[in-house]
Formats: sequence, C-alpha cells, structure tokens
Amino acid sequence: MQANPAFMQMAIDLATKNVTTSAGGPFGAVIVRAGKVIATGVNSVTANNDPTAHAEVMAIREACRLLSTFQLTGCEIYTSCEPCPMCLAAIYWSRCEAIYFGNTAADAAKAGFDDSFLYHEVKKPHAERTIPTSRLLPQQAIVSFNTWCELTERIDY
Amino acid sequence: MQANPAFMQMAIDLATKNVTTSAGGPFGAVIVRAGKVIATGVNSVTANNDPTAHAEVMAIREACRLLSTFQLTGCEIYTSCEPCPMCLAAIYWSRCEAIYFGNTAADAAKAGFDDSFLYHEVKKPHAERTIPTSRLLPQQAIVSFNTWCELTERIDY
Repeated sequence: MQANPAFMQMAIDLATKNVTTSAGGPFGAVIVRAGKVIATGVNSVTANNDPTAHAEVMAIREACRLLSTFQLTGCEIYTSCEPCPMCLAAIYWSRCEAIYFGNTAADAAKAGFDDSFLYHEVKKPHAERTIPTSRLLPQQAIVSFNTWCELTERIDY
Repeated sequence: MQANPAFMQMAIDLATKNVTTSAGGPFGAVIVRAGKVIATGVNSVTANNDPTAHAEVMAIREACRLLSTFQLTGCEIYTSCEPCPMCLAAIYWSRCEAIYFGNTAADAAKAGFDDSFLYHEVKKPHAERTIPTSRLLPQQAIVSFNTWCELTERIDY
C-alpha cells in the first residue's frame, strides 16, 4: 500500500477545524480503503463526555458501523498525531493494515497531552504504575475463560 | 481505597454470562465509586460491530454517560481480566484511581486473545511493529497543535 499525503492533510485539517470550532482537541483521523475514504473521526472527549472518544477510535467505530463489521481488513488509518497506546491497540484490534501519522507523541506532550507518559506507563510492571493495580480472585476469574474455551459455537475476534 | 472481592465476582459473573448467552467474549467490568456500582460493561465487539467495545471501555463510556463527565475521579475499576493496552490507556484517560483484575494477559493469550502480543507491540519502536507505521507531513501537522496552544479558551482533558 502506498501512502497518499492528501489523506494526511485531510486528517490534519479535521484536527485544526476541531480546535477552531471549539469542538475538541487537535486530533483528526481518516480511514481509507482502496484509495477511498471510508470514515473520519475527530477528538470528541469533552463534547461526548467520553474519554475514549479519540479521533482514531471515533474513525474506527464509524468505519465499522458503516461497513457492518468489527474488522477493518484492507483499511489504512491516517491520523494527525501518533496514536496513543489506547488508539494504537484499538488499531491492532481493528485489523487496520497501515498507520500514517503526522505529529509525534512527544509533540502531543509539549501541547499538554499524556501520550508519552502513557507509553511509559504501559511498559512498566504493575507495581510501578501510577494507578495502583492488584489481582483478585484468580481462581474464580479463570471460569470465564474456561467457559469460552469449551464453547463449540462462538464468533472469534 | 480497599478492594471489595464482591465487585470482582460481579465482573467475573458478567464475563461468564456474556459467554453463556453468546453475547460476546469472556470479559466483564464494573466501575465503583464510594462502595457503589456506577456502571458495568461486557465485551460487545461482535455484538456491536465495534472492535473498541471491550468490557472496560464499555463500562467507562457508560459511567461517563451516567455521570455526565469525561473524568471518573474517585472511581475504581474491577475487570475480570487484566486490561489490554487499549483498555489500560482508556483507564488512565478516564482518571480511574485503582484497577483490580482477575485473569492475566497470559491467561487471555491461552484463550486465544491478543493481549500479550499487544503489550509486546506497544513496547516496540515503530519500525519493528507488525503494522507498518510511517510519518507524513510533520510540518503541516504541527499546525493543529499550534492552533490548540494559541487558544485562549479551551476545555483541557
């Protein structure tokens, strides 16, 4: 697949417009398949009261809704900023096949966002993370997975 | 804050029921504030055609909707499985203050889920990741952040 800078410019313009219209943070994303825009997204955290409503997540959700699928095979994502760990993992779960980004996580950090911090946190063992993390009831919890593995008919994802 | 195993059992029961009702994957989450359940979530990826609809993300979205906020200060999350990187970062963005989990990412891997793989991917530099990742138009992209930083009135998040 070949990068098309026009789609990156579209993501950047969405990001800038999201700021100038006071709709949200400076982030935009575009999902493309076979040279055509499938869906776009902008940061909608404060507008939607949804901390997960980053541009990439919004674009993935919209593309999946429009295509009636939970997997974006054959799609690429153009995002005005390097995906945060939430968005990066969302892109993996969505099965998008390429990522193009404009700003870096370090640029985002300079603008006051936690992206770089989160990359550091995700890499740490539980005990060293800022949010206290503990394990409870492991013997009970495994029952859910055993039930899943014993299922004869299921939709894997 | 003190862990309450009853909330973990609730998350586990939600996860198991999500499987036995063929609604989705074996994952459940409960968000608690001051000893009371604020919201719950179950894995709804295939049901909703939304690859971001993991139990923790669903619970965070629902809690924020019910509380009309984008920040869950004072809340804790109980999740039947260690959050994947998407959900972990979503928890950070949501400002939840404690994480309790049952199964581990390694348990999830044994049941066929990509959680451990994603923890490895997130830690890698771009060039070594499975999804090809490249930077485009950095000089144009920074305009979005500059516009944000110059804004006199904005809602930080």
